Amino acid sequence: MEPTLRDPTDPLIDHAEGQHFLNEAFKVIVEEVLCKGTDATQKVCEWKEPDELAVLLDLELREMGEPRGRLLQRVRDVAKFSVKTSHPRFFNQQFAGVDYHSLAGRFLTEALNTNLFTYEVAPVFVLMENEVLRSLRQLLGWTEGDGIFCPGGSMSNMYAINLARYRLFPEVKSQGLWSVPRLAIFTSPESHYSVRKGAAFLGFGTDSLILVNVDDRGHMIPEDLDEKIELSKSQGVVPLLVSCTSGTTVQGAFDPLDQIADVCGKHKLWMHVDAAWGGSVLFSKQHRSLMKGIDRADSVAWNPHKMLLAGLQCSALLLKDTSQCHGANASYLFQQDKFYDVNLDVGDKSVQCSRKADCLKLWLMWKAIGSNGFEERLFRSVKHTFFYWSVNVCFEFPLCAQPEFVNVCFWFIPPSLRGKEGNADYPSRLAKVAPVIKERMMKKGTLMVGYQPLGDKVNFFRVTVFSPLISHKDLDFFLDEIERLGINL
Amino acid sequence: MEPTLRDPTDPLIDHAEGQHFLNEAFKVIVEEVLCKGTDATQKVCEWKEPDELAVLLDLELREMGEPRGRLLQRVRDVAKFSVKTSHPRFFNQQFAGVDYHSLAGRFLTEALNTNLFTYEVAPVFVLMENEVLRSLRQLLGWTEGDGIFCPGGSMSNMYAINLARYRLFPEVKSQGLWSVPRLAIFTSPESHYSVRKGAAFLGFGTDSLILVNVDDRGHMIPEDLDEKIELSKSQGVVPLLVSCTSGTTVQGAFDPLDQIADVCGKHKLWMHVDAAWGGSVLFSKQHRSLMKGIDRADSVAWNPHKMLLAGLQCSALLLKDTSQCHGANASYLFQQDKFYDVNLDVGDKSVQCSRKADCLKLWLMWKAIGSNGFEERLFRSVKHTFFYWSVNVCFEFPLCAQPEFVNVCFWFIPPSLRGKEGNADYPSRLAKVAPVIKERMMKKGTLMVGYQPLGDKVNFFRVTVFSPLISHKDLDFFLDEIERLGINL
Repeated sequence: MEPTLRDPTDPLIDHAEGQHFLNEAFKVIVEEVLCKGTDATQKVCEWKEPDELAVLLDLELREMGEPRGRLLQRVRDVAKFSVKTSHPRFFNQQFAGVDYHSLAGRFLTEALNTNLFTYEVAPVFVLMENEVLRSLRQLLGWTEGDGIFCPGGSMSNMYAINLARYRLFPEVKSQGLWSVPRLAIFTSPESHYSVRKGAAFLGFGTDSLILVNVDDRGHMIPEDLDEKIELSKSQGVVPLLVSCTSGTTVQGAFDPLDQIADVCGKHKLWMHVDAAWGGSVLFSKQHRSLMKGIDRADSVAWNPHKMLLAGLQCSALLLKDTSQCHGANASYLFQQDKFYDVNLDVGDKSVQCSRKADCLKLWLMWKAIGSNGFEERLFRSVKHTFFYWSVNVCFEFPLCAQPEFVNVCFWFIPPSLRGKEGNADYPSRLAKVAPVIKERMMKKGTLMVGYQPLGDKVNFFRVTVFSPLISHKDLDFFLDEIERLGINL
Repeated sequence: MEPTLRDPTDPLIDHAEGQHFLNEAFKVIVEEVLCKGTDATQKVCEWKEPDELAVLLDLELREMGEPRGRLLQRVRDVAKFSVKTSHPRFFNQQFAGVDYHSLAGRFLTEALNTNLFTYEVAPVFVLMENEVLRSLRQLLGWTEGDGIFCPGGSMSNMYAINLARYRLFPEVKSQGLWSVPRLAIFTSPESHYSVRKGAAFLGFGTDSLILVNVDDRGHMIPEDLDEKIELSKSQGVVPLLVSCTSGTTVQGAFDPLDQIADVCGKHKLWMHVDAAWGGSVLFSKQHRSLMKGIDRADSVAWNPHKMLLAGLQCSALLLKDTSQCHGANASYLFQQDKFYDVNLDVGDKSVQCSRKADCLKLWLMWKAIGSNGFEERLFRSVKHTFFYWSVNVCFEFPLCAQPEFVNVCFWFIPPSLRGKEGNADYPSRLAKVAPVIKERMMKKGTLMVGYQPLGDKVNFFRVTVFSPLISHKDLDFFLDEIERLGINL
């Protein structure tokens, strides 16, 4: 049956009605996500089994639309059953907390709904992205260069690898990897898994990854890097790039950039730094020494959506390189006979076509609190971490290692395991503790924190305290609650 | 100097103050972007030269933060100088218009700020994404399969190519392209440039692209495809994949999928369909025949952020393949000893780690208007296009070709060129018309539409009318305004 057309000359959407709905939805969002969702007396998550949740949400999409009241209830339900990542008891990941200036920037970005590819459709964002990238580069100690916001740090890391490949063998862009010798990418086993994914996606294959040894705190060992580069060369493989990490995901380790830069210089390798997590230390005069040598890098990935609270997604790739590696010169978009400087049409720097504007939220927050505000937040996070844990660590909560940054890795030793360290089954029993406590906390809804094994260390908790919303009371609750949840284990 | 800490046990962010700012910012957004920004009597863009705009926006980021009033003015300025893509005179790109349900979904997504990688942090979004993808697959006529939302159609296309490579040569994931024979990707010269970018990024090189001839309406010619596959084989190259297009960017052409599927079947090639633009015809019983044969594809990219108004970014990749091509099994995120079904931890389907939830905005809009609502919108767009242009085309506005979909490609012939078609300099003079009119419309701020050359056709305008906010009055204005702007050329 042919759909019935209303007056075909009139719009199908009524603005007044639409804006009324948006207003109502906004109130629900503020109430459920920003008020209840940040209230320590409310749950951080409302755990439901998947089957049960699917029924509660009534997800099925149908032929007929629904009335406004029903839709507002849906907005409320989505909020209710979602995890409250801005809650003061959410420590599960390296995003947490809310900055209201950033959030306002995100709403504005969504409402403007434009595409960061040409100056004509995104004049403000083109100039703003340039300025934000310039300011981030300045923190690296670079006076020039380039950059782009990517949909996440994994993409930023991939861009860096692709750029390194293009610099060494520009013909690879047209002729592919078949036309060049086998290449090797060096990184540590504690680097982010996206380096591995990137090696596969970009056609190198994961065997192209050479894992460089780390010390017991998780830092890449420059001498081992040097040896492995030499070994690769002797095997006829061309060393391409070292992907260092500033702030590893689990331990928060900072690779020794200065010494790695020496090795890269000696062998003429592209030096990439995955500072997705740790980059924010550059705002702090006290802590920026963790990244000493960053000025010598060729490329840096830095995710302001993590520690800076810019909100997902906000990932900057900063480059010394200014080549047009990714260009494809699409003539329907990047016309060369435009009336303005077509260098402002930045879309050809990207492998995306549609690209969200991820700069405004960071820019607005930066304007609101200034570099000093970021410094204060960073300083406070690190100080909290060091101070709090130096006071509260005890035999019930032994650390896996002294924290270097805001990552704290620790076990909870339940009563039944205390003093049993010598027993043969101790590691296997300890390994089962964190998963059980995790299940209990999720079902109770009082806390969220992650766990994982690493190397020969069995399952331990990793907490990263960086949200400026966290008080000492929340940290006290954190340890007490883990103890309550695990006391009978 | 050490930053001054306030009471170090208290949070740094005040919720009441933050929410007050957000409320004020929300009002500005509604007023500037959604009221003024959709009002036909207001400008669609407020053109400024880049240098002037940079000064007006005062982009520089400083040490000190700014007071609330100043920040609200910044929100207003960003809105004021941004292009109003929801304005009824914005025809510049294949995103335009606003759906308020979708926008509410986007605000909610931003406020929830979670990451679509595990069920534990994104229970609602994991289930919802599955359901939305299932519903989209249903429209393809598939009863099973997989899929993922990607940050844009370019990424979706790249995923498809990578999956095809993995299916044919699973060893490529570890050993890289050096371990496999040269591969070829077939597409038409009118396909999206992301296929070219993808070939370079994934390591194939752009020479791996074999361009299949199109007919004069821009459709891939299956017989030529067949011949080129045979030719590749005879040259020792392994044909990998055909990337067809449903709705080409410029002409809106739909490749003949059924016949291409025959060729793919004969040669056992992966059939990918880039339906980023045209996929939405599947909602319409009248028009879905444009994609006859889609049920035979291996993968489909479909961007609801285009015609469906879901808002940037919303790009679905739909797959028959259910292999775990992109998995890297990061043990800190995808623990196998979790208490719930770890198949719900969908992050390892992606090459991203952080991944925005792009499903909610589409889901909420779909709930609001139903499949019938999408059908009505689609039907109306196509009907408008065909009807309007059949009436209004004349010697001043000749079409480049009869429209097949909502893309209309046409020239404006200014008075000085009328009747001069035979002159030797006619094409070169006509080529200069669209850029001048474009400059004038941008500076006047009354209209935005794009132009480009294609093949031997010199610069022409391409308009795509699909926003449900567009009335016949807007279309009348559109042609009249182009004439006004170009009457003295």
